[in-house]
Amino acid sequence: MHQEFIYFLDLAGTLAFAISGIQTAADKKMDVFGAMMIGFITALGGGTVRDMLLGNQPVFWFHDLNYLAVVGIAVGIVYAFAGPVRRLKQTLFLFDTIGIGVFTVIGVTKGLDAGISAPYAVIMGMVSSVVGGATRDVLCNEIPLILRKEVYATACLFGGAVYVILHGYGLDEVLVSFVTMGVVIAIRLLSIKHHISLPRMRS
Amino acid sequence: MHQEFIYFLDLAGTLAFAISGIQTAADKKMDVFGAMMIGFITALGGGTVRDMLLGNQPVFWFHDLNYLAVVGIAVGIVYAFAGPVRRLKQTLFLFDTIGIGVFTVIGVTKGLDAGISAPYAVIMGMVSSVVGGATRDVLCNEIPLILRKEVYATACLFGGAVYVILHGYGLDEVLVSFVTMGVVIAIRLLSIKHHISLPRMRS
Amino acid sequence: MHQEFIYFLDLAGTLAFAISGIQTAADKKMDVFGAMMIGFITALGGGTVRDMLLGNQPVFWFHDLNYLAVVGIAVGIVYAFAGPVRRLKQTLFLFDTIGIGVFTVIGVTKGLDAGISAPYAVIMGMVSSVVGGATRDVLCNEIPLILRKEVYATACLFGGAVYVILHGYGLDEVLVSFVTMGVVIAIRLLSIKHHISLPRMRS
Repeated sequence: MHQEFIYFLDLAGTLAFAISGIQTAADKKMDVFGAMMIGFITALGGGTVRDMLLGNQPVFWFHDLNYLAVVGIAVGIVYAFAGPVRRLKQTLFLFDTIGIGVFTVIGVTKGLDAGISAPYAVIMGMVSSVVGGATRDVLCNEIPLILRKEVYATACLFGGAVYVILHGYGLDEVLVSFVTMGVVIAIRLLSIKHHISLPRMRS
Repeated sequence: MHQEFIYFLDLAGTLAFAISGIQTAADKKMDVFGAMMIGFITALGGGTVRDMLLGNQPVFWFHDLNYLAVVGIAVGIVYAFAGPVRRLKQTLFLFDTIGIGVFTVIGVTKGLDAGISAPYAVIMGMVSSVVGGATRDVLCNEIPLILRKEVYATACLFGGAVYVILHGYGLDEVLVSFVTMGVVIAIRLLSIKHHISLPRMRS
Repeated sequence: MHQEFIYFLDLAGTLAFAISGIQTAADKKMDVFGAMMIGFITALGGGTVRDMLLGNQPVFWFHDLNYLAVVGIAVGIVYAFAGPVRRLKQTLFLFDTIGIGVFTVIGVTKGLDAGISAPYAVIMGMVSSVVGGATRDVLCNEIPLILRKEVYATACLFGGAVYVILHGYGLDEVLVSFVTMGVVIAIRLLSIKHHISLPRMRS
């Protein structure tokens, strides 16, 4: 039951990420195939790189066609309802935020399961959330947004650290997962509401 | 005999891809080393990423120096005969088209052998054909051509689907391989001749 | 003892690479997190890609927090002493040059240990030294410097070839390591002093 709920949230996050990628592709006047590809990479790129780095198991989508279906659905939605989808900005933002919460939990869990040092497991949580969007930006010839001004990645790192600490105290995994998601989502929402951002480097 | 013929076509495709990469490098005024590197990545990048994704065996060129030699030959050819090579555009286009046909067959076969879901095996065929050129474009600071207007990738996907379907009916592997290559090549040639392209996304 | 010395040089090179990445991030007005990420990728990206390509063991930093600490220290240094660090250009250049020497030795060794063909082991040495900086440039939306005018990569290739040849004659590994580093460092220094560069491709 808990696994299924996480999986459901994972697909919801995948949908939101795919839509964001496909919208970027549409802005760049790509064709349907290019949009599908950017959507796929945005949504699944983070988890893919994480799994390639960990290297102890197949890439997570290799045996699950739901992920491909979700990206296909996202292309269909954006193609058919470009305007209305844009107006759903708030809903998509919510899905996206839930998405990075789930992706963080999945990444940290996989990192700990692979036996890597805890801080690197936290980084695996962030990689899951962040690399897809960064690759989208590189492919669209822009400096990844995340490197410039988002608290996005920081929220994932904080959430991941919370997971590792609570998990270290032996708390129930389901509970820890939901607390982690809550922390990620709360940090992101609060930072946007209060315009909090990290200090800039001086050049 | 059949394996050797596929291997020969693979090297011919590698040569065409390497030359296209090296010409791009020359346009960007890179030095000989940069050109060699871009040629290598353009020609071998797709198969390399495919093998890293599948992760069940070493990267295909690790024990075969012919691939390195082909890239070296390509650098020599472009360096010595820059002008004449440009005029061979049609021949290179033919080699390149044969190349994506072979790369598709090799990618789909490896995907099926690794036991991943059939649609993802089809995607592995496309990855083999497409990722090298896309990486070349990213390194040269351009939006990958393939994301903007090519039927290229679509031809690979169609060909890969044909492979999976015919293979599923238990047809002879050699026959299926050549039919697949024929489909890829035909779609690409016809789409160029008749200016067929995929619909654009609306922004 | 010898292993520890190599490891110490490896960390020194990591520090120099991280600082160069973080300075680039500061020039692009990134925040502290973006700088940390670019520093991490610049310093550890080459070895990471090498290990993912070789695929026969975990990525080298997965169980060693010193690498993460070094990148953190680099962020702190550049943040606190931006001006003075810029003036240490010569020292950083020296560290950086020692860095590519060590990275080359580690890469070639790992390649040979994995049993790949010797020329590809040499390429693994170059990948270790070069891919981090190239990824930094791609993320910062520039054509990798290395593809345009550096003898950098060539020094790594020469050094790697020396390693493979001397190692083939059965010479002591420690000796061969230091000769290799010497060759890499000498080529880089001499090429800069005498403004030697590779011939450009003609377009």
